Amino acid sequence: MEFSLMTLGSASARPTSSRFPSAHSLTVGGRLFLIDCGEGCQMQMARFKVPFSRLDNIFISHLHGDHVFGLFGLISTLDMTGRLSPLHIYAPDGMKELLDSISEHFGQVKYEIVLHTVRCKEPVTVAEFKNLEIRAFPLRHRIETYGYLFREKEPALNVMKSAVTAHKLSLEEIGTLKRGEDVIRTLSDGTRTVLKCEDLAYRPFEPRSFAYCSDTAPFPKLQEWIKGTDLIYHEATYASDLRALSRTTSHSTSEDAAKVALSAGAKKLVLGHFSSRYRSLDLLLDEARKIFPETFLAQEGMIFDIPEKTSPKKFL
Amino acid sequence: MEFSLMTLGSASARPTSSRFPSAHSLTVGGRLFLIDCGEGCQMQMARFKVPFSRLDNIFISHLHGDHVFGLFGLISTLDMTGRLSPLHIYAPDGMKELLDSISEHFGQVKYEIVLHTVRCKEPVTVAEFKNLEIRAFPLRHRIETYGYLFREKEPALNVMKSAVTAHKLSLEEIGTLKRGEDVIRTLSDGTRTVLKCEDLAYRPFEPRSFAYCSDTAPFPKLQEWIKGTDLIYHEATYASDLRALSRTTSHSTSEDAAKVALSAGAKKLVLGHFSSRYRSLDLLLDEARKIFPETFLAQEGMIFDIPEKTSPKKFL
Repeated sequence: MEFSLMTLGSASARPTSSRFPSAHSLTVGGRLFLIDCGEGCQMQMARFKVPFSRLDNIFISHLHGDHVFGLFGLISTLDMTGRLSPLHIYAPDGMKELLDSISEHFGQVKYEIVLHTVRCKEPVTVAEFKNLEIRAFPLRHRIETYGYLFREKEPALNVMKSAVTAHKLSLEEIGTLKRGEDVIRTLSDGTRTVLKCEDLAYRPFEPRSFAYCSDTAPFPKLQEWIKGTDLIYHEATYASDLRALSRTTSHSTSEDAAKVALSAGAKKLVLGHFSSRYRSLDLLLDEARKIFPETFLAQEGMIFDIPEKTSPKKFL
Repeated sequence: MEFSLMTLGSASARPTSSRFPSAHSLTVGGRLFLIDCGEGCQMQMARFKVPFSRLDNIFISHLHGDHVFGLFGLISTLDMTGRLSPLHIYAPDGMKELLDSISEHFGQVKYEIVLHTVRCKEPVTVAEFKNLEIRAFPLRHRIETYGYLFREKEPALNVMKSAVTAHKLSLEEIGTLKRGEDVIRTLSDGTRTVLKCEDLAYRPFEPRSFAYCSDTAPFPKLQEWIKGTDLIYHEATYASDLRALSRTTSHSTSEDAAKVALSAGAKKLVLGHFSSRYRSLDLLLDEARKIFPETFLAQEGMIFDIPEKTSPKKFL
């Protein structure tokens, strides 16, 4: 199953000739999620063939223009495609008033917009799908801002085929093992035998996860909240030369981002939200890689894939 | 002196992978004007090196999203560049409320936005610069919409150098001729001689003009209002196959646009505002060229130049 992030926009506040404002799409299986929606997001979706028809959920980190100015055009375009199914938008307080004032000026769309106002001081589940759970967690920025953690749900255990044959397991017993419980059989002589789950069942795969962290100044709890995440997108507005500025503007340097990835035990880090003052991003990448080697630069159209992780059948 | 139009966006309501929503820049001498500001306009300006610092005047045809959704990001970016000089926006009624609600959500910018509300039933001058006059005229669309006519002012006449010498013209007499008046000399014997302006002076150049017509259904007065315009940008949302649709949506076909250019006696026509359903625009171009051969397609980054026109020195 696909689990991949695509960068649609890697710029911070001011876009450049090659960098669009913040926007990413995340594909998990057949589901498509949009995370932040900077100006031009819909054009980038068209350019990189992100299917509009599969977009049902948009997650907005905060209400700064470079993260939401693409929303109005996208909402309008989705209306023109004949969309009738609801569009879910997860965003901090204030989004309702913003959308209301836009629709007051430009008219209502024909489909329903279901607004989920995110409000939390600790990580909280904001959306749940069959195989996926999405948690919001607060970031430290100049206005109310949230990060989002996308995590595959813990799968039901699989029972080894060889065990089914060897032990002549009944459907009920297989169900018991799949739930992670041991099977207890009472023999005809009244003695009991235990078929241990850990010997007969295994996790078919390890749940994958992605954390989106933009915009934020660094703070200790962040790495705890996204511990063990496979892929982290973290803003890196500045290199270390502008560390002081990063603090006054509540942003991060690429070193800050790398430290978060290291502490969280992530497998891969994607940097983004680059200040327009950096023509070349080599410095940001170099500084981060000294701390966390598996660091990459977000770049428009680039895809960061999290491959399926099959658990070793360690229980057998 | 430069007088050139650049296409920043050629799409109608729904952008495509290569066409951005409506936006054009017009350069006249050192002045830069933006006409409509669809989503992504600022990225296109950056891409095609349109200098943000020279932008003082924006003309908006109407308040449909595909003509204004780029304004919020652009206004914000101009603020980040440290702009302090006022930005003039010419737009129909409703722009004030729209800008007010955006600044309520995203904060005030540090420079002044001077809003000029356009409201007219006949062509009217809305802005005047040293060498240039800009007139607004109403279009026929679903909401209040205006076109804009940019026209160099009539220059003062030049007096032939040979005439100055031959007639030993005084500064006062030269001034008289420059104003287009004849010089009347009273000789010592009381007789009068007339030095005719048309014999001694000439127009240094013919004023150039550009008319922007989007969005609109065709109507007879339009060609009168833009009579003699050198370059016309006219919307051509559809080819003739969708003429009926063009009427119900208050748009034009490329044939409609060509007829306007022909009737107005234009030198060149640029078609734009293309429906996303047309991958190839050949049909639109072909249909228009049958009526008005000097037709061209707007395409992102393309420049349409109006060369200087020196008048023949016919007065001598």
